[in-house]
Amino acid sequence: MENKKEIPYKIYLEESEIPTSWYNVRADMKTKPAPLLNPGTGEPMKAEELGAVFCEELIKQEIDNDTRYFPIPQEIRDFYKMYRPSPLVRAYCLEEKLKTPAKIYYKFEGNNTSGSHKLNSAIAQAYYAKKQGLKGVTTETGAGQWGTALSMACAYFGLDLLVYMVKVSYEQKPFRREVMRTYGAKVIPSPSTTTEIGKKILAEHPDTTGSLGCAISEAVEAEMKNPGYKYVLGSVLNQVLLHQTVIGLETQAALKKYNIKPDMIIGCAGGGSNLGGLVSPFVGEMLRGENKYQIIAVEPASCPSFTRGKFAYDFCDTGKICPLAKMYTLGSQFIPSANHAGGLRYHGMSPILSQLYHDGLMEARAVEQTSVFEAAETFARCEGILPAPESSHAIRVAIDEALKCKETGEEKTIVFGLTGTGYFDLVAYQKYNDGVMDDYIPTDADLQKGFDGIPSIPGIQ
Amino acid sequence: MENKKEIPYKIYLEESEIPTSWYNVRADMKTKPAPLLNPGTGEPMKAEELGAVFCEELIKQEIDNDTRYFPIPQEIRDFYKMYRPSPLVRAYCLEEKLKTPAKIYYKFEGNNTSGSHKLNSAIAQAYYAKKQGLKGVTTETGAGQWGTALSMACAYFGLDLLVYMVKVSYEQKPFRREVMRTYGAKVIPSPSTTTEIGKKILAEHPDTTGSLGCAISEAVEAEMKNPGYKYVLGSVLNQVLLHQTVIGLETQAALKKYNIKPDMIIGCAGGGSNLGGLVSPFVGEMLRGENKYQIIAVEPASCPSFTRGKFAYDFCDTGKICPLAKMYTLGSQFIPSANHAGGLRYHGMSPILSQLYHDGLMEARAVEQTSVFEAAETFARCEGILPAPESSHAIRVAIDEALKCKETGEEKTIVFGLTGTGYFDLVAYQKYNDGVMDDYIPTDADLQKGFDGIPSIPGIQ
Repeated sequence: MENKKEIPYKIYLEESEIPTSWYNVRADMKTKPAPLLNPGTGEPMKAEELGAVFCEELIKQEIDNDTRYFPIPQEIRDFYKMYRPSPLVRAYCLEEKLKTPAKIYYKFEGNNTSGSHKLNSAIAQAYYAKKQGLKGVTTETGAGQWGTALSMACAYFGLDLLVYMVKVSYEQKPFRREVMRTYGAKVIPSPSTTTEIGKKILAEHPDTTGSLGCAISEAVEAEMKNPGYKYVLGSVLNQVLLHQTVIGLETQAALKKYNIKPDMIIGCAGGGSNLGGLVSPFVGEMLRGENKYQIIAVEPASCPSFTRGKFAYDFCDTGKICPLAKMYTLGSQFIPSANHAGGLRYHGMSPILSQLYHDGLMEARAVEQTSVFEAAETFARCEGILPAPESSHAIRVAIDEALKCKETGEEKTIVFGLTGTGYFDLVAYQKYNDGVMDDYIPTDADLQKGFDGIPSIPGIQ
Repeated sequence: MENKKEIPYKIYLEESEIPTSWYNVRADMKTKPAPLLNPGTGEPMKAEELGAVFCEELIKQEIDNDTRYFPIPQEIRDFYKMYRPSPLVRAYCLEEKLKTPAKIYYKFEGNNTSGSHKLNSAIAQAYYAKKQGLKGVTTETGAGQWGTALSMACAYFGLDLLVYMVKVSYEQKPFRREVMRTYGAKVIPSPSTTTEIGKKILAEHPDTTGSLGCAISEAVEAEMKNPGYKYVLGSVLNQVLLHQTVIGLETQAALKKYNIKPDMIIGCAGGGSNLGGLVSPFVGEMLRGENKYQIIAVEPASCPSFTRGKFAYDFCDTGKICPLAKMYTLGSQFIPSANHAGGLRYHGMSPILSQLYHDGLMEARAVEQTSVFEAAETFARCEGILPAPESSHAIRVAIDEALKCKETGEEKTIVFGLTGTGYFDLVAYQKYNDGVMDDYIPTDADLQKGFDGIPSIPGIQ
């Protein structure tokens, strides 16, 4: 069916083919992901409790394990039309460079100013906040990918946005900060004197450069004390994976259009939002017994939650103020080595993906960062796109698999998620270009320190 | 014919609709652009003379005023498929924000890693260099847009690339430098000790931060003394405008597909490559008496070559080593004020566009940079894309014209060129966000200093 001449370099769906619903893979899962727990009582979080922090509609999406499809509101679909459908690209040049019989495709989510897939959920979360009549939202951001996406979404719907940005990034990565400001967001270096927790941390550690855990705590505190505000989060949560299924649904439709049946689907995994969004519809086919795919999550060897973590209830944040989630985790106190430049630093993993991995529906690989940047460079020179370090984890494994096909002669069809561009990651590229990047693999003793922080919950674990 | 429901947000042509030829507007011009002159003899440059610096096929394209269409080689078309066709976008959100009855479209050339239209010519120039059996090419770059595009093109065809990058940019804008290095280019801060002219300038001015004029001189010298190398340039030249007509031809095809007849076409103008590429096919229709359009070039008020320059033979470079071109010019020694952040700093203008402007086929407007960034911000918040400052000159005038329509009630159709993204221009955005950007309009006395440097050529001017 499939040959070079029939398949264009880029498969673009029509705007009318943008999915009209998100797909909730939980509806097809035999074992549902474990619910969030109240850290005080050890009981599942009720909608009312979550309502202190999150928007109403989003809570419904968070806790609903049964509804298979959630309609995408027209306002969100209109925004999607500004940067979607995203192309499914046939990597002809990479195939030629590798001299592989494999057929390689990538779903490219970087063609928007946020530079990544994060916008798919940001616009949804902003929409529901606006619909609820809120004045604004708060969030935290590390390097700024999520904050940028959310600032674009809030500008579109006329919502205020307060971003707590980890101080070291605020100072050393000013460009994403300025993109957020251009979109009208208020960006505050964290820790700050605008919150009690920020003041406390500054009093104890005046020279701290901040952490994501602290920024989360400040964003949640700011939401609590500002009437008309709610807090939003860009990964890990079920609602975020739901919104991101627009990636996988479009991929599925584009493949069907050209009668392409993938053998494997590869995605990078930090908190899991991109991977979950890409693979959910395919996992759904597997769960319903319609098809079989090899699904591969790729994570950094320096932050190996799937491959070396524990499947346990743990805190979602270093500040331990958020609910407990059951997930593959390195412990909420685990922080990857400072030499780690490639993103995907989160200590835990989406509860949905954790359950699927636990149930054998996907596998996971850990890769080292110099080999990731080597793959990124090869890809950039062939395919033109300078990939984000995060996305390059998936490229690494796609190349490895394509090279295996070269050895065996198999004509496998490989699909991977190219989540974004690396335009704001050039400090890391410079390290690689200068030959001063090195690798780090935590020892078992390093990991044990993180595991020691995983809580013991009577009656649960 | 045209209504909101019928026109998608983004009009994408099929890959099979990528133009198969570039259009040479000179073939339809009654008054041809004046030829390049040898500065020594005052005689038109012969192909042999140009051959010392440029590739053979490119020289043919440079001097041919008669051939209407140049076929685009298949290898270039294959590369185009990786990022083209570029979308023609209907700016529904901007229209709504402005509450204008005007219909606004923009041709977006920023969806590639170089971030601009420069790649359209870079890949063509690299192809012809490779075809001629060259080992590599040399060039200069200021902020790095052209150098980035060329590094991508050279990586694709396996050509060496030596980029002389103005030292102040090399040091203060390291990100584009690192993109070039990732694509395998050798990037040298200019002035350097790798050339005689570089050494001379360093001896005389040890603390100089470099200039584009000096970088051009070094790149040309490096080409001269490295066998197997030629020099390439990213704007101004006829060959570059020719390659860039892929923009205008796609725009024309996309408009025709939906029966849209534009009233005006707007583009920013620095050296003129984007504007020339966008408008040439439409100007061709005018020259052949088939249609009438209002064509508007937009330039910075701080570097107003069209609106306040002289139409005269002048040097193309501050180093005065290149041929003379007849163009609208502020004098080769003119340098825009240091506060000028918005690109489009070149002292002259494409000879083709200069002749068309002189003949009344297009008009020109000069705009001030704070109003340009204001337009950029409005656009970014509505349309999602963070525009390059250069492109934002066109946005400014498109918005002005749309607001005029709001007053008059006219439903004009406006098309403008969005040449690129502003991801590497965030220092300028920060200035705007901080409210510390100001405007500069040169006085007549300032301009006179530049005009004094325009050569007097016996028998010519």
